[in-house]
Amino acid sequence: MEKVDLLIKNAKFFNSYYKKFIESDISILDGKFYYIDYKKETEFESLETIDAEGKHLIPGLIDIHMHIESSMLTPEPFCNYIASRGVTTIVSEPHEIANVSGIDGVKEMIKAGEDAIIDVFYGIPSSVPSTDPRLETTGGKIDFEDMKELSKQKNVICVGEVMNYREVIRENDLDITKFIKYIKEKDPSYIIEGHCPSLVDLDLAKFLYLGIDGDHTEHTLEEIEQRFKNGMFVEIQEKMIREEIIAHIKENKLYEHMAFVTDDVMVDDLYNKGHLDNVIKKAIKADFPIEEAIYCSTYTPARRMNLRDRGVIAPGKIADFIILDDLEELEINRVFKDGNEIYNKEEKIIKKEKNYKFPEEYFNTIKLDQLVEEDFKIKVDSKLDSVKVRVMVVNDGTTHLQEQIVTLPVEDGIIQWENSPYLLATVFERYGVDGSVGYGFITGDGIKRGAVGSTWVHDHHNLLLVGSDIQTMIKVGNTIIDQQGGFVVGEKGSVLSNLPLPIGGIVTDRPIEEVSEKLNLIRDSLIQLGYDHYNPIMSVGTYGLVVSPHLKLTNKGLVHVGKGEIVDLIVE
Amino acid sequence: MEKVDLLIKNAKFFNSYYKKFIESDISILDGKFYYIDYKKETEFESLETIDAEGKHLIPGLIDIHMHIESSMLTPEPFCNYIASRGVTTIVSEPHEIANVSGIDGVKEMIKAGEDAIIDVFYGIPSSVPSTDPRLETTGGKIDFEDMKELSKQKNVICVGEVMNYREVIRENDLDITKFIKYIKEKDPSYIIEGHCPSLVDLDLAKFLYLGIDGDHTEHTLEEIEQRFKNGMFVEIQEKMIREEIIAHIKENKLYEHMAFVTDDVMVDDLYNKGHLDNVIKKAIKADFPIEEAIYCSTYTPARRMNLRDRGVIAPGKIADFIILDDLEELEINRVFKDGNEIYNKEEKIIKKEKNYKFPEEYFNTIKLDQLVEEDFKIKVDSKLDSVKVRVMVVNDGTTHLQEQIVTLPVEDGIIQWENSPYLLATVFERYGVDGSVGYGFITGDGIKRGAVGSTWVHDHHNLLLVGSDIQTMIKVGNTIIDQQGGFVVGEKGSVLSNLPLPIGGIVTDRPIEEVSEKLNLIRDSLIQLGYDHYNPIMSVGTYGLVVSPHLKLTNKGLVHVGKGEIVDLIVE
Repeated sequence: MEKVDLLIKNAKFFNSYYKKFIESDISILDGKFYYIDYKKETEFESLETIDAEGKHLIPGLIDIHMHIESSMLTPEPFCNYIASRGVTTIVSEPHEIANVSGIDGVKEMIKAGEDAIIDVFYGIPSSVPSTDPRLETTGGKIDFEDMKELSKQKNVICVGEVMNYREVIRENDLDITKFIKYIKEKDPSYIIEGHCPSLVDLDLAKFLYLGIDGDHTEHTLEEIEQRFKNGMFVEIQEKMIREEIIAHIKENKLYEHMAFVTDDVMVDDLYNKGHLDNVIKKAIKADFPIEEAIYCSTYTPARRMNLRDRGVIAPGKIADFIILDDLEELEINRVFKDGNEIYNKEEKIIKKEKNYKFPEEYFNTIKLDQLVEEDFKIKVDSKLDSVKVRVMVVNDGTTHLQEQIVTLPVEDGIIQWENSPYLLATVFERYGVDGSVGYGFITGDGIKRGAVGSTWVHDHHNLLLVGSDIQTMIKVGNTIIDQQGGFVVGEKGSVLSNLPLPIGGIVTDRPIEEVSEKLNLIRDSLIQLGYDHYNPIMSVGTYGLVVSPHLKLTNKGLVHVGKGEIVDLIVE
Repeated sequence: MEKVDLLIKNAKFFNSYYKKFIESDISILDGKFYYIDYKKETEFESLETIDAEGKHLIPGLIDIHMHIESSMLTPEPFCNYIASRGVTTIVSEPHEIANVSGIDGVKEMIKAGEDAIIDVFYGIPSSVPSTDPRLETTGGKIDFEDMKELSKQKNVICVGEVMNYREVIRENDLDITKFIKYIKEKDPSYIIEGHCPSLVDLDLAKFLYLGIDGDHTEHTLEEIEQRFKNGMFVEIQEKMIREEIIAHIKENKLYEHMAFVTDDVMVDDLYNKGHLDNVIKKAIKADFPIEEAIYCSTYTPARRMNLRDRGVIAPGKIADFIILDDLEELEINRVFKDGNEIYNKEEKIIKKEKNYKFPEEYFNTIKLDQLVEEDFKIKVDSKLDSVKVRVMVVNDGTTHLQEQIVTLPVEDGIIQWENSPYLLATVFERYGVDGSVGYGFITGDGIKRGAVGSTWVHDHHNLLLVGSDIQTMIKVGNTIIDQQGGFVVGEKGSVLSNLPLPIGGIVTDRPIEEVSEKLNLIRDSLIQLGYDHYNPIMSVGTYGLVVSPHLKLTNKGLVHVGKGEIVDLIVE
């Protein structure tokens, strides 16, 4: 009798080719599926036998567009957690750490993920800094030579999202343009991911013409249709699960050309709702056919990334799979990676964290002196009574900020903004480069009083402070500086909630339970201060993201994203 | 106004994602599709403009499983011809030349195809010799180091069909087994093509478990279903276009997991009926949906081979396409490669042959002395009156040969076979290795009288002679030896028809018209001598193919394919 390592009897497994569940006996040998015994007649001598009792068995989930750093966790605790949600392979794009520490940071992330419980692949951060150094200052950059070096690293399988999409399609001498040329000459099939919200028609074609043919950003139906029609691989994140989008995909059977992804998931959402499993569940509830939902989170992402060794339950493929208690609800009973159990509902996570330690220098990246009152006073001509200023407007439902022009009073040459509906927003360059500070005002669906501060600010991760009074801003800011990074909310000169992020100022190696709880308190504080947004954390974290429309703030000042330039705070 | 190289107005082009025809203006820049102007509103300054007048435009056809040598042509004339049938990319597996000349022959083929009018990629010949050297003698072999070397060659993109499928799934020390281990460790997604007729159940799983997951051979419906279900990429050749197979594919929507291929096409069929276009036409006539047929000969083959730069009409993809006069009939008006016209119905082929010359040694590969009467006499015990012998039985509809036991008279210790229903079959080792000769008898739907001889004998390409009388066999054999290879038919001591194949004894650099005409005459002669088979040329050419069931003949003798061993000619 032939020997195998694991035999699963009576499983209703998902056959990705016929897109249906078929009852079979499944054997596993050396971490790979060996025989799918449809006839259930072959006997094996097995080290272990599981009677699946007719339970559904699906391939391990594969998330090909996400950023570990968005969770504020380091790779190991992050992977341990998402393993419990059935995710067995991810492709992470470490441009956050790259913005802090350049190629060394990226390599450190890769190292930190090497022994993770699941397989972690990486995309080459292609847009670090995300725009022009005139628009933002970062702690690290990834240049042509860095990209070349990274492309040769093990587990680096694609170019991560090319975000400066308006620039690359124009005449330019960007490093990413040079690198695309280099890598496509070497391998015309090399995978390049994009990021191109609202890009359409000829501009979209130009982006695709460069070989950048994946996009995961938010779109209208018309934009999504243009992407599918022009050969872009569409990555659907939670906020894209909308009725008209789902209907279009179903009507045109576009499943083959899309995958579900998570992109950025806040740690508390992660802990409370789940990871890719949550996206899929939402899709199923939105009437996305369940078989196609599984296919689009296992088979198609694997194919997109040319990971032909996984994503299906078939002989020779890596034995990553989930045994479900309930199919419709994706209720997970057990998760297997390489044929080994890594999660069991009863016993929780089986394989424990190894607690990879980041080197000391990653705990010392906030190079700022203590903040003082002067840092928050905006001086203008002392003869003026008032000034017209540009204000960023937060709107619920989006991370885009609109522009508004308002008049603010001036006293003794100082703009009087405290306790007005227009909060001061400041970004302090924190890498010890030039000590520059950018100023702006903000209103709308954000906080109405108190202050919020963070070094978790996409993509440059400088120190952002927003507040309605100087004393609270100083308190929040100095708390962050003292603890070398974090997300802090305060009111009336005191701290309301605090999540330290001491590694690079953007992540922590604390366990998910703790981080989730702290972030939840941050969220509560923000809401308590009047934040009215579906995702206040991400909203704050993208005030400085200059690849996202329309008016954003960096240490260099206010950035008009469409024009790609710094604009004056004071209009007249 | 932006400049482009070519602008096609009013084309009904095939959108591979929506699987439908959409009217658009299409511009091409630097050999790649630039903008698909669905709105038909963008103006370009174009070097050339074509008004397609509503004609259908489809991507250039891609054939991922074929052997140039099967056409008996060298790469250039072969490619020139198939370009006129809309084929713009092929993946050829040069195991024929490898059997004659080893790795040098393969490299010579690659060189000969480098400047071809279309793109020629290669699979690494993995089974040369196709079985054990105890079963056949070849002029060349491809060992582990050869495969390693070839895998690094430009345009080599996969392992070609692994043919010794019964051996590789057993404990073995084959070079191909070592190589698969090596290449899969280097790249788990490296593509490995298989050849596994009639392999099912656990044996099929074992083959897949090795990572060999493509198959193009002939199957029953049950076998095809097993392949699809277990994750094998199914390559459908002409003879597989059968009602029940098509129905199964349609019912289960398996299009994504299959492609149409040609495998071996005789030069006269090629010239008279076409290449991949002919397979597709046949599929369409067999009720395969036309959109899916195009998809399965452009999109899916490109994806199977990870050629992400082609197979679709979309921005950034290589501008290989066909303008059709008639969609249903696939009537070709013009063919473009890299945005340049390479065929036009009116002017025929536009780019002419370069006439690559093979080095002298390729014209001297038949190392045999003149044949004499003694070579055809089979001696047995002189006391016997008769012997029971194994006979190979040709059956129309297949290249498989059945086994039959018959009694033949003996006179003076010589088997009396001349002018009986049992023709003598001989294979002379022709590489100057050991001068061995294999003997057998043959009957059934082959020739009934006269003789046929060939050095185009898959896969070992030794000199095969089959005849009903010694004098004609000598005439045919010596004609082939004198001209250093070919396919010759004779009767009553004279040559009826002759196709010289002087390069390696298997191909010629003569133009397709001439080769086709000569092969046609060979076919006619075979039919005239009683051959009753849908493909007499391939039938003769596979008498010696020991990876195809059941009883075959090589220079080592009769091979029982199932057992994988030499069996005695004389049973008792």
